[in-house]
Amino acid sequence: MNYGIIRRVVGLLLTVEAVLFIPAMLIGLSFAEASWCSLATAGLITLVVGGLFLLSSKKSTTTLRPRDGLVIVALGWFLMSFFGSLPFVLSGVIPRLIDAFFETVSGFTTTGATVIRDVESLDRGILFWRNFTQWIGGMGILAFGLALLPAMGIGSFQILKAETTGPTVSKLAPRMKNTARILYLSYLALTLVQVLLLMLSGMSWYEALLHSFSTMGTGGFSMYNDSIGSFNEVTQMVLALFMILASLNFGFFFLLYQKKWRQVWHSQELRLFAGIIGLTTLMVSYNLVTRYDFSLLRSLRDGFVQVVSMISTTALNIHDFAIWPPFSQIILLVLMFIGGCAGSTAGGMKVVRVLVAGKLVRREFSKMAHPRAYAPVRLNGRILSNESVAGITSFIALHLMVFLAGVLLISIENNLVISISSVAATLNNVGPGFGLFGPTDHYADFSDGAKVVFTTLMLLGRLELFTIAALLAPRRWLDQS
Amino acid sequence: MNYGIIRRVVGLLLTVEAVLFIPAMLIGLSFAEASWCSLATAGLITLVVGGLFLLSSKKSTTTLRPRDGLVIVALGWFLMSFFGSLPFVLSGVIPRLIDAFFETVSGFTTTGATVIRDVESLDRGILFWRNFTQWIGGMGILAFGLALLPAMGIGSFQILKAETTGPTVSKLAPRMKNTARILYLSYLALTLVQVLLLMLSGMSWYEALLHSFSTMGTGGFSMYNDSIGSFNEVTQMVLALFMILASLNFGFFFLLYQKKWRQVWHSQELRLFAGIIGLTTLMVSYNLVTRYDFSLLRSLRDGFVQVVSMISTTALNIHDFAIWPPFSQIILLVLMFIGGCAGSTAGGMKVVRVLVAGKLVRREFSKMAHPRAYAPVRLNGRILSNESVAGITSFIALHLMVFLAGVLLISIENNLVISISSVAATLNNVGPGFGLFGPTDHYADFSDGAKVVFTTLMLLGRLELFTIAALLAPRRWLDQS
Repeated sequence: MNYGIIRRVVGLLLTVEAVLFIPAMLIGLSFAEASWCSLATAGLITLVVGGLFLLSSKKSTTTLRPRDGLVIVALGWFLMSFFGSLPFVLSGVIPRLIDAFFETVSGFTTTGATVIRDVESLDRGILFWRNFTQWIGGMGILAFGLALLPAMGIGSFQILKAETTGPTVSKLAPRMKNTARILYLSYLALTLVQVLLLMLSGMSWYEALLHSFSTMGTGGFSMYNDSIGSFNEVTQMVLALFMILASLNFGFFFLLYQKKWRQVWHSQELRLFAGIIGLTTLMVSYNLVTRYDFSLLRSLRDGFVQVVSMISTTALNIHDFAIWPPFSQIILLVLMFIGGCAGSTAGGMKVVRVLVAGKLVRREFSKMAHPRAYAPVRLNGRILSNESVAGITSFIALHLMVFLAGVLLISIENNLVISISSVAATLNNVGPGFGLFGPTDHYADFSDGAKVVFTTLMLLGRLELFTIAALLAPRRWLDQS
Repeated sequence: MNYGIIRRVVGLLLTVEAVLFIPAMLIGLSFAEASWCSLATAGLITLVVGGLFLLSSKKSTTTLRPRDGLVIVALGWFLMSFFGSLPFVLSGVIPRLIDAFFETVSGFTTTGATVIRDVESLDRGILFWRNFTQWIGGMGILAFGLALLPAMGIGSFQILKAETTGPTVSKLAPRMKNTARILYLSYLALTLVQVLLLMLSGMSWYEALLHSFSTMGTGGFSMYNDSIGSFNEVTQMVLALFMILASLNFGFFFLLYQKKWRQVWHSQELRLFAGIIGLTTLMVSYNLVTRYDFSLLRSLRDGFVQVVSMISTTALNIHDFAIWPPFSQIILLVLMFIGGCAGSTAGGMKVVRVLVAGKLVRREFSKMAHPRAYAPVRLNGRILSNESVAGITSFIALHLMVFLAGVLLISIENNLVISISSVAATLNNVGPGFGLFGPTDHYADFSDGAKVVFTTLMLLGRLELFTIAALLAPRRWLDQS
């Protein structure tokens, strides 16, 4: 284990986090709220600890081994979430550390599950920090998924390869640093455009900013107890549009910047993503129009926003769909598991993995008609290696196993439907999807044990599971084949 | 398409079925019931149609192509189920053909789902036929899975290969006919032993026979409205024991016959199967002992019988577990999907597939620690080909896709929990598992549309999905890679 470099990177991460407290603090100051003080204190503590990490690290020339990278990722997430929860505890908004940690992990993993019963009562500085964590998380995920790990020499990292399977990454700019910069700029630019459009649609600058954080990170924290149900239709459509954009592979924006329209247009993942949204919108809308008094237009609009809200794993909801027909509920539940495109800020299993699983099934049929034919699995015309395919199917298998384990643990204290929906909502980083079947919309009612399970699921879902699990697995188990 | 041989095999199947009506008819006659007449009529009609098929077929020397085999399997199941349902319709026990077809498919697929509200009112001849269909189905499945298809030259049949992946088949007797005979003798011998043991435990010969049919076929049709809840503990334990035996790979019995104990003892599928039963029995029993007034012994016993009843996909239940704690319900639901060993009469995905999926996940972890290591997936020490692994993962993916599609269709008219449990119970050929969450224990309350869906699911689950689906898929779709 290369402790020197681990300390160095973690120290850097905490120092950056300390700086990230500043905008929220300034908001608190400008509204003359008490919140600025707890934010400043949290920032100082984080800076001091981060500094200690940095000072204790030595420059190391030995190369980073896979296990070191995994430790950095896991430790980084844990410590950033811990220090990120300090403002909630210090300000008394969420007095218990376990709850505050849950809320912060929910933000950084861009889940959007909340333990706060009355969001509208919060100080604006604290609320800003809460929603800002999702935006930071989204950027971190882009870095993690597309730039950071290969740059650290963990290019052979199996999951990352599975993740970046697609038309884009291999053809991105030769230097990863360059790529990362363009991705961040896309993220920043999209956020700014969304803020402007939301303000034009009638939001205040503060509302527009906080909802853009939620949308771009596909988190789903809202400022209001009824989520986005009270906003006008134009606002809701702008939000839905940016939920879609945030669920796209950010490599697409890079390709568009290079004017490679054709490559984006022919991406099979993009087409499947669009197809799923189109088909499920029609199904949900038809279900709504036949069951309720909704007009056709309203059914289509509400169906679309809700479908996008789920598949993007944002879950900024316009309805309490606990009262929707079961047919629509099941569609929304399945969309949670599919999630957005690989290389986006969305959660879930990712469209590309579902696509490859579908291709595997189709190949099996085709083998029955032509048993001796050589039939490799292709993605966008390129043959996928057996290794990539195995990586993808293993991922799906593990995802479902963790889901079942989570449901089993939660079912000790809760009924079947709540267990299934809450575990699906946290593991897939959807968050408030929980309201899908239960009477409440937040996680405050669960026991501490359940909150620990949910926090773990959010992290496992976000870290694409293998990362954390490999750390926890005993060596003996790892070395068996 | 080789129509000659298709007609010939289907004609043979129907002729055999006509003969199989005789025992039920004799039972009806001996109890001087009206039922014998409808059974005799059904037998005659089946014989005539079967004879016409045979007469119209010519001897064909051209080899059988995979597609011909698929047509035989699908057509054979369909026609046998159709003619098998005639006694129910003719006797007026189940007046509507759609219901009678459901009941017969449920029997032949060894599912055990029923549309009969009051089983106890049935004539003994009809009841005998109903339970006998499960025993016939079980034998057909063994033939299908272990002997028939390779003998017809469809040895390259992908699913079958996946199915017979294991320690046994490749080392079975060199000639398939020989193997099949030993398997049938095992099936017959086990049935006889069970009948004797059940009679010793207190059942009448008629009860013992009918319950042995249900158990050996892992079907689960009962003669009583409360299933096996009223029988004494010894009877319940005998039934549980034979549910386990019927869920084992029948190749094991062949190996035992050859005195190859070691090979059976070291089978990874067998060990996992035993491990799952042991672990889940402890979990369910602990859940029961902490929630109810049950003694430790009773909890263990009831937990064991119920776990075995589910994983063997027999579902001869001793409790209305609709009132069990959610934790136990979820375990039972998962057990439905796992099912028994490959090469048994049980349904579900089969233990060996779950085992391989688990190995794939473990290999992925091991790759993270040793990225460059060559790590093939091994089963009982032998390396599985990439093709086998892909076949198994595709099967699991398709199984889950069909499950979701089924849930979606059923949810149009039913609530979420009923949709999930009924589709799981039919697709995995469990049957009365439906009582798991709903107030009723039979399928009579569902609409005709739902019954068609369930019938399709039972066939898809039993035919290991790919067979039927390949027949239905348009050629264009098949030929794409």
